[in-house]
Amino acid sequence: MAIASKSVATDNIKAYMQDVGQRARVAARAMARAETAAKDTALAAIAAEMERSQGALLAANKKDLDAGKAAGLDAALLDRLELNATRIQAMAEGLRQIAALVDPVGEITDLKYRPSGIQVGRMRVPLGVIGIIYESRPNVTADAAGLCIKSGNASILRGGSEAIYSNRAIAACIQTGLKQAGLPADAVQVIETTDRAAVGELIILKSCVDVIVPRGGKSLIERISAEATIPVIKHLHGICHVYIDDKADLDKAIKIAFNAKTHRYGVCNAMETLLVAGGVAAKVLPVLGKMYQEKGVELRGCAATQKVLSGVKAATEDDWHTEYLAPILSIRVVENVDQAIEHIARYGSAHTDSIVTEDITRARRFLREVDSSSVMVNASTRFADGFEYGLGAEIGISTDKLHARGPVGLEGLTSVKYVVLGDGHVRK
Amino acid sequence: MAIASKSVATDNIKAYMQDVGQRARVAARAMARAETAAKDTALAAIAAEMERSQGALLAANKKDLDAGKAAGLDAALLDRLELNATRIQAMAEGLRQIAALVDPVGEITDLKYRPSGIQVGRMRVPLGVIGIIYESRPNVTADAAGLCIKSGNASILRGGSEAIYSNRAIAACIQTGLKQAGLPADAVQVIETTDRAAVGELIILKSCVDVIVPRGGKSLIERISAEATIPVIKHLHGICHVYIDDKADLDKAIKIAFNAKTHRYGVCNAMETLLVAGGVAAKVLPVLGKMYQEKGVELRGCAATQKVLSGVKAATEDDWHTEYLAPILSIRVVENVDQAIEHIARYGSAHTDSIVTEDITRARRFLREVDSSSVMVNASTRFADGFEYGLGAEIGISTDKLHARGPVGLEGLTSVKYVVLGDGHVRK
Repeated sequence: MAIASKSVATDNIKAYMQDVGQRARVAARAMARAETAAKDTALAAIAAEMERSQGALLAANKKDLDAGKAAGLDAALLDRLELNATRIQAMAEGLRQIAALVDPVGEITDLKYRPSGIQVGRMRVPLGVIGIIYESRPNVTADAAGLCIKSGNASILRGGSEAIYSNRAIAACIQTGLKQAGLPADAVQVIETTDRAAVGELIILKSCVDVIVPRGGKSLIERISAEATIPVIKHLHGICHVYIDDKADLDKAIKIAFNAKTHRYGVCNAMETLLVAGGVAAKVLPVLGKMYQEKGVELRGCAATQKVLSGVKAATEDDWHTEYLAPILSIRVVENVDQAIEHIARYGSAHTDSIVTEDITRARRFLREVDSSSVMVNASTRFADGFEYGLGAEIGISTDKLHARGPVGLEGLTSVKYVVLGDGHVRK
Repeated sequence: MAIASKSVATDNIKAYMQDVGQRARVAARAMARAETAAKDTALAAIAAEMERSQGALLAANKKDLDAGKAAGLDAALLDRLELNATRIQAMAEGLRQIAALVDPVGEITDLKYRPSGIQVGRMRVPLGVIGIIYESRPNVTADAAGLCIKSGNASILRGGSEAIYSNRAIAACIQTGLKQAGLPADAVQVIETTDRAAVGELIILKSCVDVIVPRGGKSLIERISAEATIPVIKHLHGICHVYIDDKADLDKAIKIAFNAKTHRYGVCNAMETLLVAGGVAAKVLPVLGKMYQEKGVELRGCAATQKVLSGVKAATEDDWHTEYLAPILSIRVVENVDQAIEHIARYGSAHTDSIVTEDITRARRFLREVDSSSVMVNASTRFADGFEYGLGAEIGISTDKLHARGPVGLEGLTSVKYVVLGDGHVRK
């Protein structure tokens, strides 16, 4: 699908991206200083402009959809690409929700007097310039811009080439809103070229970009992580487990295991492997197996699972490593909580894992020893989500350990600096 | 200086480092689970063993010193390399101080009920495996090992080749202490080869090492940052500023500006550039100039500085960019706080900058707008230090923005994960 770039000499992507980066760097200083009221005004103005521009947004989106159909994009992709009145309204509402969140920037915490007489605390500050690389959904343009504005960052947004007209139309609304609030237009820049070389340049713009946030499939994220010389906040994949302990309340266990798998299939916090203690497998698996089969979930199990459940394929070593993102579930009968923790350490992706048990000692061990970004007791893995956690919004879920881990909201787009207050104090 | 490696086939550094990495990865899981009491027992046992082994430590250190002298190391380097009874006592005391700190691991904060009924909080967890690369001072071996043990991490330590015998002797004490506490010997591994290829392997051991902390000169850190594929917590350099505002209390200003430059010269938090508001330059610079000159500090100034101070060389553009780490100071007269902030943004290294003023509005602006890891009001830049800030210990000062920033103590060697507690809760 070849969409001509609007105003960019594609033979000079490097210079274009450097210019974008330098503008972002300048805008970032103004954004870091921007008052909360100005940022909230901009968010409200962008939301209003998107509602006012519904016709233009739909027209631009139609161009993308027509090109997508002509290029033979599949139905799922076309669905992600589509804008309609409801979705435009949802984007505007999302921006207003971000405006309503508490501004994290400038918050001073832990300001304490030290024996020397100085006061030491920490102030939350923006990261600077954030590069966001995403795929076909145009609403990410509005969401990501909104989160970066509120957190006082400048952003460089690179959406999928199949959404270029939609993204440009949304970008126009963002520009109008920034202008109305007196904030720099370069605070949000949408890459104007569909040339893939622009991504390659963006992820090595060390002097201008502070962090890259890729949003999309595993292959996109792996490629970006491998090539980037800038830190990447990445979400690789979610191989999430539920472990049903032999001291579980079986009603809760069945509710949670069913919800974690079937509430939505294509999401990273869906359960992919069910672990069941040997002591309760014969009791709980037949009930659950029937529920899954009625729902159309394909089951793949270990030998012990196959003994208590008929019509279950044998799970292979590959199954334990697989994020299905589909109505497929692997099931393994384990001896006890130790073997469950071992299985998760070996095959999990450090995303989200849950134990179902009434035994507080085992619950405490699971919480302490499972090294995942979210660890749960008696709750569905589907709760691993920025909104459910009260972050108010989410730019992604990090499976990294450094900087941000788990759902990343406004705070994940900030850092802290130390502030020291004295009254002429010097070191002795 | 060629020191033969003890037990390592130097022709197979890659395999050796992979083995070290895998052992560390296994030990890291045990360390993450280790009880506070076991970690504190180990720290106390290492301290006692170092005191008991004073003779062996001094003998090993003598080998390094003799080799260093034979290789023509300069006096400053030999001083850094030297152990004596006082320094051994200081290492032991440092470990006891780390034992006395609160264990950060497992702390749960912000545990709150959400509208869905689940409780969501965050638990502090170790990073995993930390690779520390440092230069000649052998006490870093004990300090770094102590911080990593207390924070529940496994560590791989690579000291300077000139300190290899000292580091091995300290490593033997660490092994004894870990054993006495029932912790895995692989929790702290000191690299047994002086082959520089070991560093190259360590910084790309992605599957086994979670973060690299280089401690040393700028060239070491730049090289490691350029080549590492693992995240690096780095401290590049400190071009620290003091700005004397025209609303400063001049007594405080003189005390602070003198202390920040002359308390110690070779440290990263020493002031390298003094900025003075035009309105008070004629009043404050002659006093300060005299004090600096009596102390033997070479002054380099802008044209306005030269007008009010005789015997001052002209500062070049290079001076504003230079971390002298020496009794040299560059001085610039600026118009006001805006120009001071601009100067710091342009020439600073985002380490530590201080304003001297009685004006609260300017103080607030400086705190908010200067984007450095430590920003101060009416205090000497020399306070930028983990001990002064109450961290209890310090593995370095980070000039990065992601993950850790400013002095890095135990908390900087940890991450957090989300914990979710429910009672059979599922997503609606």
